[in-house]
This record gives sequence, C-alpha cells and structure tokens, in this order.
Amino acid sequence: MPSYKAPVEDVLFLLNDVFQMQRHSNLPGFADASPDVVEAVLGEAAKLCEEVLQPLNRVGDLEGCIRHEDGRVTTPKGFKDAVHAFAEGGWIGLAADPEFGGQGLPYTLAAVVNEFSSSANMALAMYPGLTMGAIAALHTHGSPEQKALYLPKMIAGEWTGTMNLTEPHCGTDLGLIKTKAVPQPDGSYKISGTKIFISAGEHDITSNIIHLVLARIEGAPEGVKGISLFVVPKVMVSADGALGERNGVSCGSIEHKMGIHGNATCVMNYDGATGWLVGQENRGLNAMFVMMNEARLGVAIQGLAQSEVAYQNAVAYAKDRIQGRALTGPKAADKAADPIIVHPDVRRNLLQIRAFNEAARALVLYTALKSDVAHRGGDDKERQQADDWLGLMTPVLKGVLTDVGFDNAVRAQQMFGGHGYIAEWGMEQFVRDARIAMIYEGANGIQALDLVGRKLPKDGGRAVMGFFNEVGAYLKEKGEDPALAPYCKPLGGALQHLQQATMWFMNNAMAKPDNAGAGSVDYMHLFGLVAMGYMWVRIVEAAAAKKAAGEGDAAVLDAKLVTARFFMERMLPETAAHLARISAGADSIMALPAEAF
Amino acid sequence: MPSYKAPVEDVLFLLNDVFQMQRHSNLPGFADASPDVVEAVLGEAAKLCEEVLQPLNRVGDLEGCIRHEDGRVTTPKGFKDAVHAFAEGGWIGLAADPEFGGQGLPYTLAAVVNEFSSSANMALAMYPGLTMGAIAALHTHGSPEQKALYLPKMIAGEWTGTMNLTEPHCGTDLGLIKTKAVPQPDGSYKISGTKIFISAGEHDITSNIIHLVLARIEGAPEGVKGISLFVVPKVMVSADGALGERNGVSCGSIEHKMGIHGNATCVMNYDGATGWLVGQENRGLNAMFVMMNEARLGVAIQGLAQSEVAYQNAVAYAKDRIQGRALTGPKAADKAADPIIVHPDVRRNLLQIRAFNEAARALVLYTALKSDVAHRGGDDKERQQADDWLGLMTPVLKGVLTDVGFDNAVRAQQMFGGHGYIAEWGMEQFVRDARIAMIYEGANGIQALDLVGRKLPKDGGRAVMGFFNEVGAYLKEKGEDPALAPYCKPLGGALQHLQQATMWFMNNAMAKPDNAGAGSVDYMHLFGLVAMGYMWVRIVEAAAAKKAAGEGDAAVLDAKLVTARFFMERMLPETAAHLARISAGADSIMALPAEAF
Repeated sequence: MPSYKAPVEDVLFLLNDVFQMQRHSNLPGFADASPDVVEAVLGEAAKLCEEVLQPLNRVGDLEGCIRHEDGRVTTPKGFKDAVHAFAEGGWIGLAADPEFGGQGLPYTLAAVVNEFSSSANMALAMYPGLTMGAIAALHTHGSPEQKALYLPKMIAGEWTGTMNLTEPHCGTDLGLIKTKAVPQPDGSYKISGTKIFISAGEHDITSNIIHLVLARIEGAPEGVKGISLFVVPKVMVSADGALGERNGVSCGSIEHKMGIHGNATCVMNYDGATGWLVGQENRGLNAMFVMMNEARLGVAIQGLAQSEVAYQNAVAYAKDRIQGRALTGPKAADKAADPIIVHPDVRRNLLQIRAFNEAARALVLYTALKSDVAHRGGDDKERQQADDWLGLMTPVLKGVLTDVGFDNAVRAQQMFGGHGYIAEWGMEQFVRDARIAMIYEGANGIQALDLVGRKLPKDGGRAVMGFFNEVGAYLKEKGEDPALAPYCKPLGGALQHLQQATMWFMNNAMAKPDNAGAGSVDYMHLFGLVAMGYMWVRIVEAAAAKKAAGEGDAAVLDAKLVTARFFMERMLPETAAHLARISAGADSIMALPAEAF
Repeated sequence: MPSYKAPVEDVLFLLNDVFQMQRHSNLPGFADASPDVVEAVLGEAAKLCEEVLQPLNRVGDLEGCIRHEDGRVTTPKGFKDAVHAFAEGGWIGLAADPEFGGQGLPYTLAAVVNEFSSSANMALAMYPGLTMGAIAALHTHGSPEQKALYLPKMIAGEWTGTMNLTEPHCGTDLGLIKTKAVPQPDGSYKISGTKIFISAGEHDITSNIIHLVLARIEGAPEGVKGISLFVVPKVMVSADGALGERNGVSCGSIEHKMGIHGNATCVMNYDGATGWLVGQENRGLNAMFVMMNEARLGVAIQGLAQSEVAYQNAVAYAKDRIQGRALTGPKAADKAADPIIVHPDVRRNLLQIRAFNEAARALVLYTALKSDVAHRGGDDKERQQADDWLGLMTPVLKGVLTDVGFDNAVRAQQMFGGHGYIAEWGMEQFVRDARIAMIYEGANGIQALDLVGRKLPKDGGRAVMGFFNEVGAYLKEKGEDPALAPYCKPLGGALQHLQQATMWFMNNAMAKPDNAGAGSVDYMHLFGLVAMGYMWVRIVEAAAAKKAAGEGDAAVLDAKLVTARFFMERMLPETAAHLARISAGADSIMALPAEAF
C-alpha cells in the first residue's frame, strides 16, 4: 500500500528562503501569514492529508461512485466524512474573502494545500477543489445577493460547486454550446440541455450542489459571443438560505473511466431548471474564465502532486527491494543482493522525477505569489507585471506539469517492475489518475495554442518580454558568481533557445499560422524547461547562501545542488531538440490530404 | 467502440519492395512463401484478427479472468473459441518444424501475424504467443522424446505453454531463485516452490498446460549457475500422449492488474510437481533464453501493435470529430466546425505515431528476416552477421518499441479529449494494455543494460561494428542520390551521434561502469532512432523507385516520402539530446547517498 508524507520542509524553504514571502507582508492577508503561522497551518494540512485523505485513496479507486436508479450518486466509503473534515478545518475558505467566512490568507497557501490534498487523494480533493473555483467565479462576477446567498455555505463546505461547460458535441469549441436559457418574468431563467463530463456533478456529500452552467439565452448571437453563465442550485434556496424543492437538474448517468473513480463524472440533464444569470448577458465565457484559470492552476498542481506521491513510493521501494549487485561491486554484502537504488538507471529515473518536482513546486509557488500580487497588490505596475506572469504561465504550468507529471507517474511505476502493474501496490492508480490532468480544463494541445496564439502576442508581447527581462536580468546579475555560474550558463543557453523560438514564430507564423500550431506544444515545453531552469538557479542561490551561513540541514542543501546539476545536465539539453522541431515548421505536417492519414 | 484493420498492404510493400524477401528463397520454407502465398496467408490472418479476435478485446477487458475456489480459472466469454479458431487456422505452427506438424514458413510471417493479433486483442494473443515461445525452447533444448510428446499437441494448439521464471523476491535477478527440484529414481524431478506473474498460468481454454519452469536442483551451485529448466505439465501425460492425473501444480491466485485483463496472471504453486529436465543440468537460463529472446521480440511487437491500433482509431476520430476552425480559415464551411484533423497539432501527433509505426514495422520485419537467416541460412558468415544483428537489435526493439508504443497509445488517447478517458471509447484500454510491455520479459532498463553491458562488448564489438558498417555503407552508396540525399543527410548526423556515444562508453565506462548504467537507456533510444532512420531511408528508396516506375498507389508512396521527412525533421533531432545526456556521465547521478533520496 502506498504512503504519503507532505513535503512541508521543501515548501517552507521555498516560501521563506527562495521567494522570501515576507517581502509581501504589505498585501492583505500576508501579515497574518508569518513564518510560524505558515508552518503551523501547513503542518495541520499535512496531518489531515496524510492521516485522513490518503488512506481513502485506494478505497475510492476500488469502490468508485455508484449512480442509483433515481439519479442519486453514492461516493466511496469515508469520502463524505473526509470532505467534511476538510471543510471543518477551514481549508476550503483558506484564501477566501473573510466577508463570507473565509480566512483571507494568501492564495499561495491554498495552492500548497491543493498539492498536499491532491497527492493524498486526487479524486477526493476535487470536491473541495471545484468548490473553490466556483467560489472564485461567484465572488468575481456574482451579484451581491448571489454572493450573500451562496458563498458562506460554499466556503463552509456545506454546499459544493461544479462547472458545466462541455456538451456531447463540444468541449474545446464552446461556441457550439446548445444548452438554452429562457428568461422568466421573475428575472430567472429556465435552463434546458445536456452537459457531460461534469466532475462532482452529483454526490451524497453535501445537501446542495451549486452548478455554474454555460448556456445560450434565447435569441443570443451564435458562437462564443452568445454564451452566458448561470448559477443553478441542485436544490432551490430561499432568500434566507433555507433549502426548498429539488430543481430541474439531475444526473442522467456516470462515466466508467480510466481513473479518479472516487469522483463521479456525470452527465447532467437540465430540464427547465431554474437558474440566475451571473455577470453580464453573453459574457459567460469571460466569467467562467475566472474559474477556468484557477482550475487550470489547480490541475497543474494535480500533475505535480501525482508525480510527488509516485516519487515518494518509488524511493521507498528502491531502498527496500534487493535485486542484483551494484556495477562497482556489492554494496550490501550481508544480503543476497543490493537494494536497487544502487543502480545508476534507477537513480537516474528517481532524480528525473525529483528534479522536476522541486522545480515545478517552486514554479507553482512563485506563480501563486504573483497571483496574490495581481489580485491583492497595491502598485499598478507591480500588479500588471504579476498579472502578465500569471497569464503567461497558466498554460505553461497546466500543460507541462500534467504532461510531465503523468510521465513521472509512469516512470515511478516502472521502478517496481511487475509489481508496478498490480493494483494492490497502488502505483498504477497514480498513473490512471494522473492521466486525466492532461485532458480536462482544456487539453494540453489547447494550452499550447493559448500560449502561442493568445498569450504571446497579447499587449504587444509584453508578458513574454517581461519574462525574458526578468530571467535575463537575473543571469546578468548572478551569472558571474562562481557558485552560480555552472547553473546560470546552461540556463543562458536554454533562454537563447526560447528567444530564438519566439523570434521564429514572429517571423514565420504571422503569415502562416500553421507554423504556430505545428510548434506550439514544443514551445510550451521549451518554455517550461526554461522556467524550471530559472527556478533551479534561484533554489541554488538560496541553498548556497544558507549553507554558507551555516544554516539549515547541510544534507538537504547539498541534495538541492546535486539535483540542480542533474537538471542542467540531463533535462535542460532538451531545449535544443524543441527548437529544432519548432524551426522545422508546418510543411511536412500539412502536406498530406486528410484522406492520406 | 474501436475498430482495427490489419496493415496488410504496408507489410507486403516492406516484404516485397523494401526488403525483397524473395532474395532468401534458398532458405528452408521461403520457397513456399512466394508473394502470392504470402498475400493470401496474411489476408487470412487479417480476417481472423479483424473479425474474431478484435470484437473480443473489450469483452476481455470488462470480464477479465476469474479464479474459482478450486483453483480453476475461467477466461472471458468467447476467448476459448477464438483461441481454438486461431489454432485450427494453423497460426500457432505457422513457422514451426513440419516434423511436428508445423507449416515451416518463415518466422518473419509469424512476426507479422503476431502484430495483427496483438493489435486486435493483446490479452488473447498471449495464449498462443507464449505457446510459440515454449515450442521454440522445447524444440531447441528438449530431448527427442520430449519433443515428440509435447510439440505436436502444442503446435496444434491442443495444449498451451508458459514460462515460469519470476518468484516473489526475484524477477530481474534470477540468481536468487528458490524453487527446488529433487531428483527421483525414475529420472524425473519433484518441483516445489512459488512462481508469480505467470501469464496464462491457468485457464479453461485447453485440456493441458505445459509449464517451463526454472528451478534449482538440490545441491546445485548458488546463483545463476545453479539453475535448471524443467518441463512440468499441468496434467500428466503418458508416453502415448494420453492425459492422466493432475500434476502437483496449481494456481494459488490471480493478480488484479492495470490491463490485459483477459489474460490470467497467476501465482503458481508447485507442490512436489513432477517435472523433467530440459537440456543440461544448471544450464537452465541458457535454455530459457531461447524462449526469452523470442518473447522479447514478441513483446516489442506488442508495443508496435498497440501503437498501430491506437493510431487507426485516433485517425478515424480526427476525421469525424468537428471542433473549431482551421487556423487558415474554414475547411468544412458547410458544417458548424472543421474536423479536428485540420489542426497542425493534431496532425503532428498523428504523424509522430505513424512515422514510428511504419519504421518500427520495417525494423521488426528486417530483424525477423535476419532471424530466419540466422536459424535457417546456409552461409556461415551470413548466418553470423544475421545473428549479430538479431542479438544487438533484440533489446533495442523490446525497449524502444514498447516505450514509444505506450507513449503513442497515450498520444492517440489524447486526440479524443475527454472521450479518451472514458472506457467505452476503448482508447484507455490500449494505454493500460500497452503499459505491461515496458515491464515484462525484462523491464526496459534491463534491456538497456543488456545492450550496453552485454551486446556492445560481445565478440569485441563485432555486432555494433557490423551495424555501423551496414548503415555507413548504405549512406555512402546512396547518399549522393538527389532523391535520397535529403533523408540520408540527417541520418548521417544521427549515426555520428551514435558512434560518438559508443566511443564515449569505450573511453569512459571501462574504468567506471556507472557511466554505462547512467547512459544506457538514452543509448538504447538513440540506437532505436538511428535504426528507424535507416529503415526510413530504405523505405524512401523503395517508394521513390516504385513511383518512378509508375507502379503502386501514388498517394500511398507520397505519404511515405512525407512521413519520412517528418521523421527526419521532428523525431531524429532527439539524438543530440541523448548524446548530451550520455556524455554527462554518472557523476550527478551517483553523488547523493541513498538516504538523501
């Protein structure tokens, strides 16, 4: 049976030493997040995730969710109590507005808790996770009455939230949405249509479910410009918050799927359900994007989370399993064989996962801090720069962390040999669960198009220039430092590859957009490598400084330096191959007629 | 529901046009394999796989195998009849010795049928597949009496075969085997011990199962030099072939695993079961290697097979699913959206799978022909060269085709968006089934070690020099041909990378073997890319010649040229990254103490 220990120490090192979170103590909520408070909060979160959520991970996979004939859905044994424990700990509202019962702490801390809970039990963590996204959307675009009615209960975890976008004929292309909204005299709408792939669409955990639903108001323009967002409660809510009749929405069936069995993936039927407009008419995509962007970061974190828990279990196995002898002679001569961690190829695989995990975690936290600055910061320029980073990095994080997170789950599974394929060891569940993160909230190919087609050209390329300037300035300032130079040099080369690729798009994709599409996924991964390389040099800087000052655990800091070197030597060289593929353009890709495939 | 069409045309193009199989008509069995016979044989195989095996693929996944309390195992509905249909078609004995009822046709054709049947139904194809491996081992190392007793029934498919190597505490390190064999006065042995992960170890398909079992004869030396091979029938067989009592071997449990649910993975308990020595005492590994090498090629083909069937279904979906518009403007203006095959990134993914599939198939067939030459050829030198190629390429094929085959199943699944995650679409089954191929018959890390540690240095590097000479001579001869130069040039660069990597090992791994272990998997994939690049230039040569002669389907031949270009531009550049990683050596990998992981 797999186990999990939340990486609290690594998070504290990143927040305190690498990013010096206290620099932001002028932002709302940050003053309350002093280092000792952060440590205590994360310690509590770790405890809940390790002791309550993780033991239910395999149960959830085995039992799955069951839909009954009357449309009710039962979640796996223990899930209900665990979600309530999560809610009662205040974790859903950790970063939410205190006006509605939230704790108002930095979003950065919520991102950390998201990692811990997703490592412990991804299917379970989705119930509060989606609720947090729905809270964010309602908080930004809901009317004062809507906020007052829904947010306190959702923040308290008494009700959960969902997002309803996809229909059988459209997922990526939301302009094709058919679900209809018919205005009623009382200002409400009657919603009718079918939504599919609705995570947590129906369950037995809470007394109500607040659905956020994209639909087209009768007579609205075609395409994405005619889509509005509605809030549709499963059970009608009176003005005083009391529950009334069932609304006209029900779960028609649940999907049998590869993984995340503990979370019901529902077909939701809206049969004249009563809903209320959220935000402006025909601006529904805009409103939903608040939830989608938050969800995309959340999904990125799921990729990291599965990679982390898979790594931990692979390490434990590699230290325990004896098989064969070290190439350089026996290391455990008293045993029949050496533990497999003596083998270079086993270590190579472990380090490859770890070098990703630690940099990805840094990138998540750095981006989460930017998100806090963007949403809570005072200075216009600082806020704009933070928002630029957030917009640029959201598709990179979602695409790269879930692609690599999945690969790493597969890699960790491989360390187990045949045992990795057997359900009871739990490794194959990590693989199956991690797989969905590459698909939902915008398949990764769509993330790459968002990056290349929208985020790069936006505001005349301001965001990407800001990224180049930040990394470039860092390299200029620190590149001569002998302790940092061995790390800065390869990063400088990788940054050049990214700049060349960006330039190539500017020169070749304006007139021929297929060149952008053909290179988009390579560009996204190239971007991810450079961003993670940047995180590694910042980690090295902090680790070296701490070591020089005689602070911290020397073994832990040394491991950072070695892992950073591994990243530079063995992972960063991939940037050249990405650049070569991008520069190859679209010709060979577009040459064949569709029939020739 | 997924579908499958066997790529008969592509195989015929490879056998007839690219490799000119008829050149080998002097070999036993090849004279019977005239082009029209081959076409007819493969057409029959295709029909069986498409119409009988494939429709049972999803049934097998859903039902799985069931072990009853008495140890009996029931296979999924339809499996028994389908395996018998396969046997009655003569497919198990297609390449087997006519003396025992085989058809004696080239092994190359059996490899093709293996691809078709594994694409159609991998779990089912393993029943005859393992039997063929057991036939090969008994044919090579069995006594005349053993051959006469077992081979005719196995070739006829009346009995199946298994291989029993792994025990709970050892898979890779067979020197740790504990299963005991105690000599009996009648020349037989009593076998006792537990074997795990035994595919098709128990089932209801045939009346007997012939287990080949590795065990240690009482008093034998420790380690791999004390292991012998035994044949242990499930049901005792009298000299006239009649079935008698049950032998002391039974299935203790079956594993719940990620995929290939239709094939029972058994814990086999040997409780004083009667067995007979196969080959020489303490030379069991040697004898088992006949079966393992054949099985490794078979597993490599499974990787290709899952990649092929996943590709076919992804293409069908990409042509059918409409979503969004082409970047260059609507292509299906009469519809609400364009089919997603207009998008460069969708095509890139499809071409990446296809460029692999077609080269991998060529490499499998070329290697299978070498196997036929090695086992049936007359000329000593030719036979030795063929055997060198076979030994060198077996780990490359096993490791590369299963790693990339799995990646491609994931890639094809991704084209389906959310539907790819849902069981009823069948794509996630391909991923789950393909995953095992990276693990069994020697996990891919072991294949890489076999390549670098054994196959490279063997006979003073004769095999790898032979490979370099063959590809180098080809490039020298054809590299100036204007039709081939654009393909030969990148291959020449990639070959140099491989040669540099080989040289790097010679210079750096003798004194420090960890350098070999640290670079072994990169080297294996680098080797695979060069070998597939070599296949592509040979395919291009044949396609260009055919086109120039006005023969064949021009659209098919054009697609070969475009796909080859895609391979050279977008897949071969990876060789540089592999070389960079290999040259980085083992330092950062070995630096950390085990506790630091």
